[in-house]
Amino acid sequence: MDIETFVQQSLGSWKSQRSAHHLAFSHFEEVRSTLDIMPLEISDPEVVTLCQQYGVLPKQIVSPFRMRWEGESDWDEETVLKGETVLVPVPNRDRANTGKLLRDQGYAETVAAAGDYVITEDGTFILTTAYDRAAAEEKIWFATPNLRFRVSLIKTSSGRGVTTASLSSEIRLNGPS
Amino acid sequence: MDIETFVQQSLGSWKSQRSAHHLAFSHFEEVRSTLDIMPLEISDPEVVTLCQQYGVLPKQIVSPFRMRWEGESDWDEETVLKGETVLVPVPNRDRANTGKLLRDQGYAETVAAAGDYVITEDGTFILTTAYDRAAAEEKIWFATPNLRFRVSLIKTSSGRGVTTASLSSEIRLNGPS
Repeated sequence: MDIETFVQQSLGSWKSQRSAHHLAFSHFEEVRSTLDIMPLEISDPEVVTLCQQYGVLPKQIVSPFRMRWEGESDWDEETVLKGETVLVPVPNRDRANTGKLLRDQGYAETVAAAGDYVITEDGTFILTTAYDRAAAEEKIWFATPNLRFRVSLIKTSSGRGVTTASLSSEIRLNGPS
Repeated sequence: MDIETFVQQSLGSWKSQRSAHHLAFSHFEEVRSTLDIMPLEISDPEVVTLCQQYGVLPKQIVSPFRMRWEGESDWDEETVLKGETVLVPVPNRDRANTGKLLRDQGYAETVAAAGDYVITEDGTFILTTAYDRAAAEEKIWFATPNLRFRVSLIKTSSGRGVTTASLSSEIRLNGPS
């Protein structure tokens, strides 16, 4: 599978049920959220800015998209988790199933970040992102066109230890059942 | 990775933190348990019985083991989840990273079951088991020698729908930290 197909399948609105395991203190966290994934034009100003920030040319990118989320955690019920980020895939020219994923707001730290992705033979999208004080590994795959799963690991910056592991089950809203 | 190495790495006692998503009603279930994985002899009577049940010869099997678990779910706090099962890998002769896994008690249904496994290039053990009224897919992989993850999907027997998805984070007890 190439990244265009993966993004295409991801477009739409999703209801997400996420469990996080904070491993050091065996804590369970439950998050319920909605997720919107919308296509963007290659000429979109936010896409262009992000490309410039990373010295990437528009002709190198495919399928840019925006992701918006809004939800609630049982860890802090007062706070609404809410955010959005622009994501820009930059496939490698020689290996179409691998590349960089640029984003204007990271997952483990809220700064711009570029991760490395690979799409495996069985259609699993694996993204590895190094931050200043942490590293993130995300695996996303579709069980059906309307159900996708995401396993995320937050690692120490050395990449050896794992501090948090989570599973998200994402069900398409308004999809055929 | 071959199945002998995978079983070898799995031996020992583990503290498991498991989150299940019951997708039809967006329910979160939390399970805490301990897990013991112990090697068995090929000549062990329970191993021999299981082999006979499936018409498998002792020379076809490797690394049989016993798995015991005991834990508690927040769904039914009255009940202690407790059980054990004997597992017997039967590698395919022509493809060493694939084979059958026999067990004397299944995961989705408590009957003897034989699943098909494959160990992918990145060391993920994937087990698919068909039951009468359901199918199970489990992915198990090591983040470090003392930390393994397990993602389990319970599917409808057609294999198209998913009823339950879960993530287990398993930390080795008494392992070096």
